[in-house]
Amino acid sequence: MRPAARSPDKVVHVGRPASPGLVLGPVIIDQARTGPRRVAGDPATERAALEAALDEAMTALGELIAAHTGEAADMLEFQLALATDETLSEPAFAAIAAGAAADVAWTDAVDALIADYQTAEEEYFRARAADLADLRDRVLARLRGDAEVSAVLPEAAILVADDITPSRFLSTDWTGRGIALAAGSATSHVAMLARARGVPMAIGLGPVDTTDGDLALLDGEAGRLVVRPDPGERAAFADARGALERRRVAVAAAARRPALTASGERVQVMINVADPAELDGIDPAICDGIGLARTELMFHAGAGLPDEAAQLAAYRRLLAWAAGRPVVVRTLDAGGDKPIPGYTVDNEPNSFLGMRGVRLSLRHPEVFRVQLRALLRAATDGDIRIMVPMVAIPGEMQRVRGLLAEAAAALGREQIPHRVPPLGMMVEVPAAALALEHFDTDFVSIGSNDLIQYVMAASRDAPGLGDLTDPTAPAVLKLIAMTVATAEARAIPISLCGDAGGDPAVVPALLAAGLRCLSVAPSAVGAVKQAIVGWEPAR
Amino acid sequence: MRPAARSPDKVVHVGRPASPGLVLGPVIIDQARTGPRRVAGDPATERAALEAALDEAMTALGELIAAHTGEAADMLEFQLALATDETLSEPAFAAIAAGAAADVAWTDAVDALIADYQTAEEEYFRARAADLADLRDRVLARLRGDAEVSAVLPEAAILVADDITPSRFLSTDWTGRGIALAAGSATSHVAMLARARGVPMAIGLGPVDTTDGDLALLDGEAGRLVVRPDPGERAAFADARGALERRRVAVAAAARRPALTASGERVQVMINVADPAELDGIDPAICDGIGLARTELMFHAGAGLPDEAAQLAAYRRLLAWAAGRPVVVRTLDAGGDKPIPGYTVDNEPNSFLGMRGVRLSLRHPEVFRVQLRALLRAATDGDIRIMVPMVAIPGEMQRVRGLLAEAAAALGREQIPHRVPPLGMMVEVPAAALALEHFDTDFVSIGSNDLIQYVMAASRDAPGLGDLTDPTAPAVLKLIAMTVATAEARAIPISLCGDAGGDPAVVPALLAAGLRCLSVAPSAVGAVKQAIVGWEPAR
Repeated sequence: MRPAARSPDKVVHVGRPASPGLVLGPVIIDQARTGPRRVAGDPATERAALEAALDEAMTALGELIAAHTGEAADMLEFQLALATDETLSEPAFAAIAAGAAADVAWTDAVDALIADYQTAEEEYFRARAADLADLRDRVLARLRGDAEVSAVLPEAAILVADDITPSRFLSTDWTGRGIALAAGSATSHVAMLARARGVPMAIGLGPVDTTDGDLALLDGEAGRLVVRPDPGERAAFADARGALERRRVAVAAAARRPALTASGERVQVMINVADPAELDGIDPAICDGIGLARTELMFHAGAGLPDEAAQLAAYRRLLAWAAGRPVVVRTLDAGGDKPIPGYTVDNEPNSFLGMRGVRLSLRHPEVFRVQLRALLRAATDGDIRIMVPMVAIPGEMQRVRGLLAEAAAALGREQIPHRVPPLGMMVEVPAAALALEHFDTDFVSIGSNDLIQYVMAASRDAPGLGDLTDPTAPAVLKLIAMTVATAEARAIPISLCGDAGGDPAVVPALLAAGLRCLSVAPSAVGAVKQAIVGWEPAR
Repeated sequence: MRPAARSPDKVVHVGRPASPGLVLGPVIIDQARTGPRRVAGDPATERAALEAALDEAMTALGELIAAHTGEAADMLEFQLALATDETLSEPAFAAIAAGAAADVAWTDAVDALIADYQTAEEEYFRARAADLADLRDRVLARLRGDAEVSAVLPEAAILVADDITPSRFLSTDWTGRGIALAAGSATSHVAMLARARGVPMAIGLGPVDTTDGDLALLDGEAGRLVVRPDPGERAAFADARGALERRRVAVAAAARRPALTASGERVQVMINVADPAELDGIDPAICDGIGLARTELMFHAGAGLPDEAAQLAAYRRLLAWAAGRPVVVRTLDAGGDKPIPGYTVDNEPNSFLGMRGVRLSLRHPEVFRVQLRALLRAATDGDIRIMVPMVAIPGEMQRVRGLLAEAAAALGREQIPHRVPPLGMMVEVPAAALALEHFDTDFVSIGSNDLIQYVMAASRDAPGLGDLTDPTAPAVLKLIAMTVATAEARAIPISLCGDAGGDPAVVPALLAAGLRCLSVAPSAVGAVKQAIVGWEPAR
């Protein structure tokens, strides 16, 4: 990382962008986190050391979980579940009994599991290999007696490292700070978290020529780090940051206003939510309701399926936040790249074309029924709407409506208050878009991510197929326009809730296709409204 | 298989159909093929025994390959490649050197590889596990000194067995005979071969209550075996066989006539071919040409990519057979469930949505160029047409046309005779169907298998999704009708070459969608023409 002789001159490192934003501040070089190997004591000592390290790691994880929500909490819970899993610790304790040092035994046991995860078929499990490495290092740091790295970085600091783990990311306050990595990946958990929290980050910079306290300039959008910038560069940077700040203020202001096109037509902007906790700190006035509430997060790996009361509480929390605005809850959309052990089908060779979404719900009516009951009960509290994912043929909606009616009848017999809310469907399978007139549905929402994937026969994850997943491709826009026209002819409300709706560059094409309701990530509301305001159709 | 006491009465066994057809004749119970375990000699003796057994098996395989074509030859060549593969035999020789008997060493080595294949992600490799078992038994029979089972069965014999191997199937003359299996699978290689060759076969019959020479009645279509049928049953059987025979004659006669609808409109019926050898014995007069010549078989695993001369010879053979009729050659359609080691991408999680067809050709222009050169050269011999698979966006056709022009220019510089034939595309990606007006193509052919798979977002291989792969679903027929309308508006010839076209029950819906050219398996030509003759559109 550090060259033999320090250069006083400016050095520009160009890597790849991972999370946009600008930082000017002192470099902090990340310290190595684990000390020298242990000298093995007797087996009882080593066993006690590993037990203590695991206990400490679990306590620390519990504290972190309490302090985080959504994706971050989910990831930490996964680590906690692993830390308590005997299939992980037993081989380590066995190795200790056979004379190994606690740190070596632990590392070997976790590394074996990491190798398994890395060769797993599902992207989901491969991505979890990094979380396992994180847990390994977390326990190892305790076994080797290392001090925890200080979580407090100087103001406007730029952390320079080879790579960093998710827990290192989560244990640090990044406000006003940035990350510059020699290696790293734009699709890692850390990069995802950095984007979600607006922490500027550049990756792939190679060995960085710097030392602690050097002034540096980080441009996350350009993937660029300038060490010891000259005055001209610093002035240009100040200008850029000023412009970015003015843009942020304008976007935040746009988010608070309704979105009107040039002709004065009102476009509804709703938000997508994966976890009720995400809503903390978001003013419901910026949106027209929740256009997509995902329910997969409630079905944690290992925690079992959530019961009716737990689901009811979650749906009530969404309705309370929405304060009378509509809340569209999507029924469990597992399968594909979202496995749930014991529920989804293992090792499907083409899981995106397999048993997923409503196909699984109809295959496991006993699980589906619990969700439908919770939704029927929540409906007495507010404007909830039920949306079914991955519908391909009319018979699927008929069966769902039948199960909904049965669940309502059962609640009636049990004298439990409930209401049958509108039942709608996602349009993400091309067959649903092409034959929408045949479906019994009260509303529809276009899921552009999957729809594009199937229309183009190209998976979003497949490397080398990026030019095949363009939401503005003529075939995609034509199918969206067809779907809108059919829905309007039937007077069925229609919206779009995929990533395309949150991209200001794509919004005009979606409006031109006839859409007047978009559901987007909360952070995208302002920019999307800016793209809508003043839009007028081409003539 | 045999009950303790023989019952003189009729017994009806109901299993599942595997290949249609009727047989009345004597039961032959398949003998066990491998004898008792060897007593291990010294390592030199055991090594020599395994070497001799492998040599004999290879000679026998070579003779079988010479006697078969197409899929069967392909499968045998795969076994031959395995028999010569040192990664298979070396662990066996190592175990022998360590004192194991030749039969045990060989079985262990093959079984380890079978286990690998059975857990492979690709269906292709899993299916090959049965071929490995076949090779294992083939060598084992020699090591244990068993006599080969006689390949000659009595006339009209019904072979009764638990299951049979592909090589057992291929080494037997099945004319007029049938197969009744206690176990078995309708998707096995043997079932596929039985259907291709018209050998009646029932599976899943359970233990069969019979003995050698019993008279029995096999109904492959019903999946039924009647042992010791009574006279009434025999009379009904004779009637059914008579009706079947008359149907066969009628179908064969229909194949020789042009297919005219009720209004006198001529519908073209072409054939799909995977291997030039399949054409032996087929009269070109039954069809309007070859609507789909697949080229994957030329790219055998292990044999390397075929050179220009080998490809040219294969294309010339197709043109010679067609005698002036059009021959549509599809460029290499690898990937998906058709891996080619060293060419396709390993372990794609969703290979059907991955790097396949033209995407791979454009990624490996050096391989594609060889095929384009061979096609350009063959075009001087007859009416060849080039068809590109898996096209999704107009840019792909532009790039193919560019490569074709470059290849033609290079041949011109080299003064090699050639001609630029029509360049068309498959419509199997929904995007191509939806936006056909944007593609630079001289003709199109709808690939219904993949198109249905993507329109429904349901893989054909996925268990439990059978009701989602219906070619007459409204969404599928609407998209086909849209595609036909666009092609006709542009005056571009359009056909359909998927399995849907070969199903007489589906043909009326395809004609109603506007299609007037179908390309089908050679064996389906007669029945398809029967479905066309006299068809009139609903009013």
